[in-house]
Amino acid sequence: MTPATLQLKKDQERRILAGHDWVYSNEIDTGQTPLKPLEPGQPVEVLSKRGRWLGYGYANPRSLIAVRITSRHREHPLTASLFVTRIQHALALRERLYPTPFYRLIHSEGDALPGLIVDRYGDLLVVQITTAGMERERGNLLAALEQVVRPARILLRNDTAVREQEGLEQGTEWVLGEDQGDIELSEDGLRFQVSPAQGQKTGWFFDQADNRRLLHRLAPHGSVLDCCCYLGAWGLQAVATGARSVTCIDSAASALAAVQSNAALNGLQGRISTLQGDAFDALRSLRDDQTRFAMVILDPPAFIKRRRDEAEGQRAYQRLNRLGLEVLEPGGLLLTSSCSFHMGREAFVQTVQQAARRSGRRLQLLFSGSQGPDHPIHPAIPETAYLKTLVLRALD
Amino acid sequence: MTPATLQLKKDQERRILAGHDWVYSNEIDTGQTPLKPLEPGQPVEVLSKRGRWLGYGYANPRSLIAVRITSRHREHPLTASLFVTRIQHALALRERLYPTPFYRLIHSEGDALPGLIVDRYGDLLVVQITTAGMERERGNLLAALEQVVRPARILLRNDTAVREQEGLEQGTEWVLGEDQGDIELSEDGLRFQVSPAQGQKTGWFFDQADNRRLLHRLAPHGSVLDCCCYLGAWGLQAVATGARSVTCIDSAASALAAVQSNAALNGLQGRISTLQGDAFDALRSLRDDQTRFAMVILDPPAFIKRRRDEAEGQRAYQRLNRLGLEVLEPGGLLLTSSCSFHMGREAFVQTVQQAARRSGRRLQLLFSGSQGPDHPIHPAIPETAYLKTLVLRALD
Repeated sequence: MTPATLQLKKDQERRILAGHDWVYSNEIDTGQTPLKPLEPGQPVEVLSKRGRWLGYGYANPRSLIAVRITSRHREHPLTASLFVTRIQHALALRERLYPTPFYRLIHSEGDALPGLIVDRYGDLLVVQITTAGMERERGNLLAALEQVVRPARILLRNDTAVREQEGLEQGTEWVLGEDQGDIELSEDGLRFQVSPAQGQKTGWFFDQADNRRLLHRLAPHGSVLDCCCYLGAWGLQAVATGARSVTCIDSAASALAAVQSNAALNGLQGRISTLQGDAFDALRSLRDDQTRFAMVILDPPAFIKRRRDEAEGQRAYQRLNRLGLEVLEPGGLLLTSSCSFHMGREAFVQTVQQAARRSGRRLQLLFSGSQGPDHPIHPAIPETAYLKTLVLRALD
Repeated sequence: MTPATLQLKKDQERRILAGHDWVYSNEIDTGQTPLKPLEPGQPVEVLSKRGRWLGYGYANPRSLIAVRITSRHREHPLTASLFVTRIQHALALRERLYPTPFYRLIHSEGDALPGLIVDRYGDLLVVQITTAGMERERGNLLAALEQVVRPARILLRNDTAVREQEGLEQGTEWVLGEDQGDIELSEDGLRFQVSPAQGQKTGWFFDQADNRRLLHRLAPHGSVLDCCCYLGAWGLQAVATGARSVTCIDSAASALAAVQSNAALNGLQGRISTLQGDAFDALRSLRDDQTRFAMVILDPPAFIKRRRDEAEGQRAYQRLNRLGLEVLEPGGLLLTSSCSFHMGREAFVQTVQQAARRSGRRLQLLFSGSQGPDHPIHPAIPETAYLKTLVLRALD
């Protein structure tokens, strides 16, 4: 299919020339090249107003991001063989950096494959397609994954709300092999039971794996609080690296049951306790009971999902971090995360500092972590950098 | 000595209340409480316009930073015993995080001791006092260091130009023990000869030690370029972690001689070559000779020392990174640093991205490192966060 042509308005090519891969609908000269007649996901070529060829991409007239660029080489549109090449590049990076095959294999724009997430659990690949353009390439994509990675099983976890914005249906589907229930994952010497078909996202949060490795260095020796613990990745690693005990908080009973069974799997069950409830409520009641911890870990879900939630989300981060500091011993460590893109790194540091002032604590910032290298950041697309994980010590 | 009182102008207490420890001269109500009569370094109490007590500090009427806050507890001015407490806190953090006694022990505002740097080389402490206020406390400070750390030797490396802005003389002095020439430092399994009395800064750049540890993970397998190599810390670690060979560039013949002797000390001399010259010139000639590297390391001195040098410094960073990319193999790794506070993290990423566009390369940002945790950042004082070290992969 010959790609349609989309022409930008005057001077709207600058961000694209600087390397960003998104074209917004209001940047397109729809008088010359209307967007509306295009099908969701239709391949396009993007030109500047003056006719300079900028790249291949795919369009979606239903989305604010009207085009995502897929290639900047005129001789290389996004074909089956380009999928193979890009997946090979992505795999080479992970094989270089990871001793075991548990990682994010494809991170969308960060691996030059916009609209595609692939997480790898050994010989199982869990794939998420988030755009109509990538959905149209599903055949090429799955064939390339099979060719390059040779997995035994592939699960499509397309049960994400972002697909609706693209006009796509939600659902999960085994496209290679079949469901065999939980799988076992190893991270830094610990074993975890993970459910790729039912768990959050694709089952595991690989993006924090590098930051969890920091626990070996921090070697928390007292009691630890793991807030929004999910399957216990932080909490179990904390006791494995020396903490006397850990209290894991989550609102989901199923997560806490998984924490206990993962603790048993690693012989750590005697040092884990769980507390079901809302994180804010649980922290308030620990504070009121005078319970204090040598280390507090706060790894909540994104509080700011859309820009318009920014102010309210910042207040929520401040409240959560203030509560965390209120249950922290003098000299203790606060490990605090935000995975909201709309909360910038400096703003997050400021928010934590505001929480510290309000709770009368002085802090030192020791580590400032990002998402792991299996979630590469595109240096021209700030939106691809989303995770901030800070470690701070309370001086008093 | 009873501290003098300095009153701020209306509403000028906000930054201090938010946790920042600097008062600028134009924020002081010098009509009510003149700065001029104060001696450089004189202890003061700082009040808001409405008389709210804000903290103890020390003043310098010669400096734009008129006051640095030393304590926010009215019952705890900066006395001999507060020095002891703060040095104990600083030492406890390093002993927790570092397996060997080689680190920055005191990082000025980051350890609540403004105007003071202490680097530790085993039983040798190298001290730098950068403000008149800390100079006045020299006796208390040295006594507290001896009491808490029990070093065999203390060297004052007060040969830094920033002292002149404070009206202090430059010089070096052994205040405990005597000069015994070079000392040997170990970093991640390698040995280095370091000269605390004559080397750059205090002899070693501890702030990059954590980032150098990344080399174990990156395991560079081909040839590596180490630009602005100083004593070879990056380059030697690169060959120790698997690189076939490393080319070390520095403008100082003495640094390159030290690289060679450090290489010999570690049995790595066959894989090291050196190139004396300006980094820009050397990179241009490597580029023109078609020499290419699997990994390029750029760790230059600060190109932006004052805000007014910002634009020119950014251009220099862009030129250096473009040259670095021009000698990088396809698929290679660029490890690039800026230690200029005036180059923010996002601006540095953008600068490297601009260099990539100009050299026609696509990059993935894999790691985004900061100064190590022995250089704690004060979360309310952005000026305490200065080091950015990025690792990027060239996709083509």
